Amino acid sequence: MTTGLLVGRFQPFHKGHLEVVKELLKECDELIIGIGSAQYSHTEENPFTAAERFAMIRASLDDEKIPRSKYTIVPITDIHNNAMWVNYVCNICPKFDVLFTRNPLVTRLVKEAGIAVEEQPEFDRHIYSGTKIRKAMLEDKPWEKFVPGGAVRVIKQFGGVERLQSVVGND
Amino acid sequence: MTTGLLVGRFQPFHKGHLEVVKELLKECDELIIGIGSAQYSHTEENPFTAAERFAMIRASLDDEKIPRSKYTIVPITDIHNNAMWVNYVCNICPKFDVLFTRNPLVTRLVKEAGIAVEEQPEFDRHIYSGTKIRKAMLEDKPWEKFVPGGAVRVIKQFGGVERLQSVVGND
Amino acid sequence: MTTGLLVGRFQPFHKGHLEVVKELLKECDELIIGIGSAQYSHTEENPFTAAERFAMIRASLDDEKIPRSKYTIVPITDIHNNAMWVNYVCNICPKFDVLFTRNPLVTRLVKEAGIAVEEQPEFDRHIYSGTKIRKAMLEDKPWEKFVPGGAVRVIKQFGGVERLQSVVGND
Amino acid sequence: MTTGLLVGRFQPFHKGHLEVVKELLKECDELIIGIGSAQYSHTEENPFTAAERFAMIRASLDDEKIPRSKYTIVPITDIHNNAMWVNYVCNICPKFDVLFTRNPLVTRLVKEAGIAVEEQPEFDRHIYSGTKIRKAMLEDKPWEKFVPGGAVRVIKQFGGVERLQSVVGND
Amino acid sequence: MTTGLLVGRFQPFHKGHLEVVKELLKECDELIIGIGSAQYSHTEENPFTAAERFAMIRASLDDEKIPRSKYTIVPITDIHNNAMWVNYVCNICPKFDVLFTRNPLVTRLVKEAGIAVEEQPEFDRHIYSGTKIRKAMLEDKPWEKFVPGGAVRVIKQFGGVERLQSVVGND
Amino acid sequence: MTTGLLVGRFQPFHKGHLEVVKELLKECDELIIGIGSAQYSHTEENPFTAAERFAMIRASLDDEKIPRSKYTIVPITDIHNNAMWVNYVCNICPKFDVLFTRNPLVTRLVKEAGIAVEEQPEFDRHIYSGTKIRKAMLEDKPWEKFVPGGAVRVIKQFGGVERLQSVVGND
Repeated sequence: MTTGLLVGRFQPFHKGHLEVVKELLKECDELIIGIGSAQYSHTEENPFTAAERFAMIRASLDDEKIPRSKYTIVPITDIHNNAMWVNYVCNICPKFDVLFTRNPLVTRLVKEAGIAVEEQPEFDRHIYSGTKIRKAMLEDKPWEKFVPGGAVRVIKQFGGVERLQSVVGND
Repeated sequence: MTTGLLVGRFQPFHKGHLEVVKELLKECDELIIGIGSAQYSHTEENPFTAAERFAMIRASLDDEKIPRSKYTIVPITDIHNNAMWVNYVCNICPKFDVLFTRNPLVTRLVKEAGIAVEEQPEFDRHIYSGTKIRKAMLEDKPWEKFVPGGAVRVIKQFGGVERLQSVVGND
Repeated sequence: MTTGLLVGRFQPFHKGHLEVVKELLKECDELIIGIGSAQYSHTEENPFTAAERFAMIRASLDDEKIPRSKYTIVPITDIHNNAMWVNYVCNICPKFDVLFTRNPLVTRLVKEAGIAVEEQPEFDRHIYSGTKIRKAMLEDKPWEKFVPGGAVRVIKQFGGVERLQSVVGND
Repeated sequence: MTTGLLVGRFQPFHKGHLEVVKELLKECDELIIGIGSAQYSHTEENPFTAAERFAMIRASLDDEKIPRSKYTIVPITDIHNNAMWVNYVCNICPKFDVLFTRNPLVTRLVKEAGIAVEEQPEFDRHIYSGTKIRKAMLEDKPWEKFVPGGAVRVIKQFGGVERLQSVVGND
Repeated sequence: MTTGLLVGRFQPFHKGHLEVVKELLKECDELIIGIGSAQYSHTEENPFTAAERFAMIRASLDDEKIPRSKYTIVPITDIHNNAMWVNYVCNICPKFDVLFTRNPLVTRLVKEAGIAVEEQPEFDRHIYSGTKIRKAMLEDKPWEKFVPGGAVRVIKQFGGVERLQSVVGND
Repeated sequence: MTTGLLVGRFQPFHKGHLEVVKELLKECDELIIGIGSAQYSHTEENPFTAAERFAMIRASLDDEKIPRSKYTIVPITDIHNNAMWVNYVCNICPKFDVLFTRNPLVTRLVKEAGIAVEEQPEFDRHIYSGTKIRKAMLEDKPWEKFVPGGAVRVIKQFGGVERLQSVVGND
């Protein structure tokens, strides 16, 4: 039984994230999906609340017929203390065996804490990128093709694009 | 589709909690189980971490063959601001239709926020009580009969009783 | 021109407070009324929000025909650091010449900071006491005679007694 | 009876702000003036304390013979959580009917909270701007013409320009 | 080379603490003396600031001719999160090999973190106790015999007894 | 008896810092060395923990045969409130007579608080600069010549350069 932990901000959850989740579910019996910076929303970098991001992820994975029993979504608030972050995650999240990340800082922190870390698979990162998708949303350019259908529905339902456009310039 | 939210500290998760969860799963299509005071542990009132409480709940519900797709467990940290608590929960938790509680303060807060609240069913509260179970653990009296088998296994695995006994008097 | 600062929690604002304010307005050209523990509400000790307490004070002083130009009401959040409290108050509040208090800790802190402090006049403290009034509210005993009419109206308008009764036992 | 809320950082309070206040006092029976980011000072963006900003506003409105009974000044500390900001303001500030703002983020947050929001009138924003005034102060260029006389007196009294010049480069 | 860490609140530093320090300096090449709850002061439990406690410890050890090169005093603020406390201490304090404590909670936390912990020697704990000394100070009974001369001088210099007497009843 | 306070982030402690310490030890009987931003680490601006910075300073001063009795190293966490910073430092640090700094903001804050402040001596600031040394570390260029031997050893021991390189781009 292997449990993996994947942490991201998912602003928004996009097709690159979806592919990573699908790939990791082949390697792990269960996947914890940690929604990072959970307390933030309504900013240019973090437009969507943890609740909204949870709904995006769930709707996207449901569409893919990924059983809900295979993964758990957990909000993880920022504590603004890198040296204690791994400890914090271990106390707040369900137990995991290995953390998947491509972020060098997180890789370093997890290694320093003596916990297993593996490089998260990459899926056309130059195409699927939260920053690029938020930019497209801001410029009223097509963004839907980068985002799973379930997440698109959720974002449209709560007016995510209008939200993002209204918060720009306030970071 | 009705989603319910049940918030508790689950220190520890006991048979009363289990019965409530089973009852609510009849009323709701999905249940969010919020682990309150998630950041606290190693105190007399809150001996177990959110991660440990998550494991207790999961193991107990697995034993009952309750499909994991029916519920979602979410850690909820205390923000020490009652007037903003409902707002906080709505932003951090997946969306829910009704909050179940027997706590008068929570009932009041949820009502003041204009959100549906229903009284949580009661199961022999005089028998199944976190306070009583922690007391029994402290006095080396039998506590296992009040706690589902899955949670008992989890508590024993991480030495929960020894933990509790060591932290007494430090609150 | 003398400006005084009077800090209290005003849970609720009662006739003793009103008499103190009236007395101090004879001594000062202007009075700053600081609402302490401003972030707390919905607890047994602090049932009412800063906004509600503001409304109680305003309504009571309006009834007394005390001109609003004579006083300023300022919410003061607790910072849980006694040694820095006076410094905090000086940075957040309008400038004042003397702080009025009967609290020995506040007296000490203000003196250690080298700021003028005078003993606040007393008005039948054994009769007019926040603790006693909250107790009366809890036990459905008459409390209105201890509270100025304006504050009574405000408290009834937002259901303050029901609020207090519902939060008891959750501190 | 209409009460309006106007929130700004007022770093410093300038003639544009003054015109807005005068205009809003025609529309409202009472105006709450919220001093945002109240806990910050001694930075390039936020050089002045809440106490100092309070004094600037008061002195400027006194000069205009605006009765103090028509407005209330309230410090509002940043909570760094956009989704909860409106809730926070409603609990800490006196009750208001409508919030006036030209900030798209605040407009959005207030609308999402179901509270009335109106666009704040504009007064030569290209001329009267906190950023420009702070820049002029830094470069020892004339800034007094953009700031009401009362605020100029207050700023000179506590050495505001020297303060700003000393904190530059430390943000 | 062994470095020990001794954590206490030292409210005040008494003769029992002094004996413990002397004993541990025989076992360790260097001793880190951590002043716990460093941010608190002016309360019944924590009357003295970290700066004042630092001065008490230093004066007492100077009197004993204990070379300052043998120990380092470090203020440790409370983070109110037991599960992360050891991690926090390790990041904020100089490196240590073994933590000395008689507190069961701290013993447990340090063990769970996989760090060496040893029982701190005891010196007539029924006689030398911070609680008892503060009680004596409050009741104007002799307390000086329980406190090293250096600490007595420091406490008298800043009026520690008057401070404590003035803050009672405000916890 | 004069005690000086020198506050820096020491990311890392370099030869310019060492010269300042040596110079100030001629002027003061004792020097408090405050490690600022003590809670931060693992970022591009603040790569090293307080514990690691403590070790760098200690090792460097030991190499110079500076007696440990001449100085005290104290971690100072950021409180993100400039107006209260001096007050905070005075409560958490051992007592000092004069604060040495070349930072205009700190100079201003200390002056406003009525505490003695002197300009810290300068030692080839264009050569010895934390920013430049971190840049050299990042680009795998020689950095050791700017850092005292003791600090170099400490940095190499915990893999400081690799740490810094791994955290870049995450600020």
